[in-house]
Amino acid sequence: MRLIIFLVCSIALCKISPAQSNDSIIINKIFTESLTRGKAYQWLEYLCKETKGRLSGTPQSEKALNYVSSEIRKLYPDNFFLQNVMVPRWERGEKETASVIINGKSIPVNICALGGSIPTSLNGLEAEVIEIYDFEDLKKLGKDKIRGKIVFVNHPLNPAHYNTFKAYSEAGPFRWRSPSEVAKYGAAGVVVRSMTLALDDVPHTGSIGYVDTIPKIPACAISTIGAELLSKSLKENSTVKFKFRQNCKSFDDVPSHNLIAEIRGTQFPDEIIVIGGHIDAWDLGEGAHDNGAGVVHAMEVINLFRSLNIEPKRTIRIVAFMNEENGGRGGKKFAEEAHDKKENIIAAIESDAGAATPTGFSFRGDTATAMHLWRFEKLLEPYGYYNWRMGYAGVDIDHLHKHGTLCIGHIPDSQRYFDYHHSESDTFDKIHPRELAIGAAGIASLAWLISEYGLK
Amino acid sequence: MRLIIFLVCSIALCKISPAQSNDSIIINKIFTESLTRGKAYQWLEYLCKETKGRLSGTPQSEKALNYVSSEIRKLYPDNFFLQNVMVPRWERGEKETASVIINGKSIPVNICALGGSIPTSLNGLEAEVIEIYDFEDLKKLGKDKIRGKIVFVNHPLNPAHYNTFKAYSEAGPFRWRSPSEVAKYGAAGVVVRSMTLALDDVPHTGSIGYVDTIPKIPACAISTIGAELLSKSLKENSTVKFKFRQNCKSFDDVPSHNLIAEIRGTQFPDEIIVIGGHIDAWDLGEGAHDNGAGVVHAMEVINLFRSLNIEPKRTIRIVAFMNEENGGRGGKKFAEEAHDKKENIIAAIESDAGAATPTGFSFRGDTATAMHLWRFEKLLEPYGYYNWRMGYAGVDIDHLHKHGTLCIGHIPDSQRYFDYHHSESDTFDKIHPRELAIGAAGIASLAWLISEYGLK
Repeated sequence: MRLIIFLVCSIALCKISPAQSNDSIIINKIFTESLTRGKAYQWLEYLCKETKGRLSGTPQSEKALNYVSSEIRKLYPDNFFLQNVMVPRWERGEKETASVIINGKSIPVNICALGGSIPTSLNGLEAEVIEIYDFEDLKKLGKDKIRGKIVFVNHPLNPAHYNTFKAYSEAGPFRWRSPSEVAKYGAAGVVVRSMTLALDDVPHTGSIGYVDTIPKIPACAISTIGAELLSKSLKENSTVKFKFRQNCKSFDDVPSHNLIAEIRGTQFPDEIIVIGGHIDAWDLGEGAHDNGAGVVHAMEVINLFRSLNIEPKRTIRIVAFMNEENGGRGGKKFAEEAHDKKENIIAAIESDAGAATPTGFSFRGDTATAMHLWRFEKLLEPYGYYNWRMGYAGVDIDHLHKHGTLCIGHIPDSQRYFDYHHSESDTFDKIHPRELAIGAAGIASLAWLISEYGLK
Repeated sequence: MRLIIFLVCSIALCKISPAQSNDSIIINKIFTESLTRGKAYQWLEYLCKETKGRLSGTPQSEKALNYVSSEIRKLYPDNFFLQNVMVPRWERGEKETASVIINGKSIPVNICALGGSIPTSLNGLEAEVIEIYDFEDLKKLGKDKIRGKIVFVNHPLNPAHYNTFKAYSEAGPFRWRSPSEVAKYGAAGVVVRSMTLALDDVPHTGSIGYVDTIPKIPACAISTIGAELLSKSLKENSTVKFKFRQNCKSFDDVPSHNLIAEIRGTQFPDEIIVIGGHIDAWDLGEGAHDNGAGVVHAMEVINLFRSLNIEPKRTIRIVAFMNEENGGRGGKKFAEEAHDKKENIIAAIESDAGAATPTGFSFRGDTATAMHLWRFEKLLEPYGYYNWRMGYAGVDIDHLHKHGTLCIGHIPDSQRYFDYHHSESDTFDKIHPRELAIGAAGIASLAWLISEYGLK
């Protein structure tokens, strides 16, 4: 029995003590370079501090594109260009105001307009409030109880999930679907509990989707402290009103760009590995984790390859996608052009889950192909990449998936991510330089392994 | 070939998708309870905010013991007692001052006395400085160049290591051995670069070991920004002096305690599983990561077992050890008494590496026994515990190791740990409630598995 245990355990030991093969030596060089001389942190500081508010179509987003262009060209990529893409433009306008009104007494609470929302009237929208947990509650209540009211969607993220992205994916529809779902029942407006696990006074924005056939109503997010107050007030009082005012506005589409740079493959230049993040960010914070981090992760791949004189066999193409947050136009345009040109994008890696300590990769595409790549886990587990699994990979690259590309999402530790997400808390000071550098090295390592060995 | 890949990958998939066995259901309950109703975070807030400065022998350390006693007894442990232990007492005294003196011009820098150091004279110690990287440099320089000077030990932590504890273990001896090593060559004092990977202006303290046969000299740590300034000054100027003043003091040993509480095993009460952290902390910060976190991790184990009505087959004994930081007396005394009483402590788990997101466990003891426990990895990997390996387990439990106990160290993500370690930066705001709760649940789960199945 002990012998069997010993043999099983010896196999287990192999997993955590891989032979120092040539591959592991190169990967160690990539991590060492990133941790000691990487540029990602300084690049991210600029994006955060000098281009805050870089929502699609804004001057800040153009400044961010110019900065990344300038820095990338210093690395002498083999190819560099901007790809035209038309993007929606939405502006928040003046800072929003809101209050809970109990027996005529107003208690101010912190809200923000949800992305893409219409404004309220200039005087604001004031109405009685009705609270729901999910859309089933709408059916139970019926139109008579909802008509003319402000619906308060109070659907907290489930704290029991280890993976906070799972909690977000469950609760998220109660943000983006809420305006149309409640408008079907005649609601005058909607206020949504912020999509965060933190109990604090910071509202978190994010996109909503209006349905063309349903009237558009104003939609805002309330901080979790505000949500707790509102919910408690509704339990304790027969009539609670809510008033909010926002003067956000949508404009016609404007021209913008995806930014693309390449190191050409030495042996199979027509086999392309895409690595990307999105350069646009919500206007409330600095877009540090979401998603300046993804952009500088991708930039660092080029820098690390150049610094270490790594010549990939297959082409490495980095992309700073525009308009992930409120339209996804950049990812769509990129995939369409690649398809039209019959480009062979064999794999695409997206970093759009922040810059905390990395834990693994999530694969979307052919399962057997993905699992074949999982043999690289033993090379990257010493750097924390233990979690290789099938799953969603990223919004920007998902259009490539439809054309057959194996899509891969970078998965950092998720515990703090939604504390910051889409809010004024997503700032540069929340980034740790080592955690950021490890992520860049992990992505560069996987890209290099795919460039060396392909997918087969 | 594809079939073989499929089979290999199927085995891999088993690892990440364990069947929802009864064990995994109980473990899921433990994590859910900890993440939704755990008490660790509020307990830690009290320790940080109300017992700051709880170095051994201080009134604050007694207040911390009283608080933990009171909270633990609310959980109705089957056994609870304080174990007497004599501890050293050292006091920092007034805030230290220091300056780099170049051509008579003084530039103030931030230092702190190293733990256990003797004071300087009341006027301070002023002397020429000589910089070394390691103790080999002392041999090269020789006594004539060192006598009467202040030696500046400038040995940075190596940022290339993924695991920052590895960097610390390499550089650490250049703190704790430095006073005696340089005093052998006649140095008048020693200033050590702070043991951190951060470049900031916060000095980090920690123990030093004087050797009885070598004269004691005053020893301090300088912030990394101060170290960079001092090193640059030495390169640019022929004569650089350093002056520092500290009036720290050692006192006679004083009586103190380890705190011990138990849930008795239902089937094998004489087989004991110890879970511990240390309740003393350096005086500069609040002792949040080091090591209030370890104490509340252990307390939470009792709370989770009680809340979920888990009755362990073997005895769960939690220990808040006293005096880890500057003497290790608590751990020593605990092991001696257990040995004298012929107690059968089959395993001991220590949490003394902070409260960041957990990554695994480090085992010290019989390798085959340790590896037999690694079959539990598949149950805990869904909660981030992927790294199960042989290695050091913890200072407090290491005395148990000498008596044959299997020792297990809890390993959180290490990237930020040394930014805070032993400095004023180790404060409650650096703790994330979810990361702390996951650690408590992981430790409780491993303790429960060992209590169910033993070691064989």
